[in-house]
Amino acid sequence: MLHLASETASGWLPNAAAHLNEVLLDHAHCEKKAAGAAVKLLFSYPHHRFLQEPLAELAREELEHFQQVLGVLDERGVRYETIKPSPYGMALHGLVRRDEPGRLLDLLLISALIEARSCERFQILADGIADAALADLYRSLLACEARHHGVYFDLAACLVDREDSEARLDELARAEAEIIARPCEWVRMHAG
Amino acid sequence: MLHLASETASGWLPNAAAHLNEVLLDHAHCEKKAAGAAVKLLFSYPHHRFLQEPLAELAREELEHFQQVLGVLDERGVRYETIKPSPYGMALHGLVRRDEPGRLLDLLLISALIEARSCERFQILADGIADAALADLYRSLLACEARHHGVYFDLAACLVDREDSEARLDELARAEAEIIARPCEWVRMHAG
Repeated sequence: MLHLASETASGWLPNAAAHLNEVLLDHAHCEKKAAGAAVKLLFSYPHHRFLQEPLAELAREELEHFQQVLGVLDERGVRYETIKPSPYGMALHGLVRRDEPGRLLDLLLISALIEARSCERFQILADGIADAALADLYRSLLACEARHHGVYFDLAACLVDREDSEARLDELARAEAEIIARPCEWVRMHAG
Repeated sequence: MLHLASETASGWLPNAAAHLNEVLLDHAHCEKKAAGAAVKLLFSYPHHRFLQEPLAELAREELEHFQQVLGVLDERGVRYETIKPSPYGMALHGLVRRDEPGRLLDLLLISALIEARSCERFQILADGIADAALADLYRSLLACEARHHGVYFDLAACLVDREDSEARLDELARAEAEIIARPCEWVRMHAG
């Protein structure tokens, strides 16, 4: 369903559970970046009418999640501040082709994969952490991430033949599986 | 209340009323740009915690308005496409100072003025056009624009003393009054 080519390694959960505040802070930035990426597509591709409504809707939801996570940070007394991102997003964007429609297709499919990976990680957190309120938050958000994965996947299939889109998704998913497994010195939502 | 230094000239309404489809198309872009400007501030000033929630909320509302206006364009059979913007936004942004906190103060106050001008124009359209459904749309949106004006005005007063903020707002409002009155060859939400 999520088109991921790998499962998260078993070592990620205990590391994340031991640094939940840092994971939450990273998560807040991820929600904001997800909204930013959708808004950027609205501006980069104004001539693609089919993108406008779904991505506006998606950006609104990501901003709402950002606000929710900010609220949790406040409750936990965690200061919202910038942190070093994992190299995941930049590595994925390095795979984007330059020419259209390849470029837009890749941007849509990479967003689909990021949403899928977030969904998988939220499931792992929801099932694996002791904090029931936080587990509930992740459970509520993972359904949205799965839906957003579907939104990007469907938009990609509006741009090119579904077969071509799925073939490229397979390629990018294999690359994503390698990138997410790379060691990272900090615990992050999207790092090994 | 809205801190505008001028009223819209009487010639704007008949021109707008004669080109409502073009005004709506411009309006759709304005809503998207308003959302984009708020999201951009979230990324440019992550260390200003006080901006994050209000601007995320505001961006969500602007995106919702964008979707609403897209729906109206569809109903009227108007194709959503790019159009030449009025020179208003660029002229206002030319007034932004380079050094902080002047830069952020100016960005907040300019957004406050753009929201105020939108509010004033929506009121003129709501009162002056024959299309009742469209008048209702403008009436519903103008309340949000007035509220957004207040959001930006209050954020500016979180950044510097309210007195300093109001003094700069007066300066910028006088400049805005001159800029909005400049002749423009197309009918636009923000043009003379």
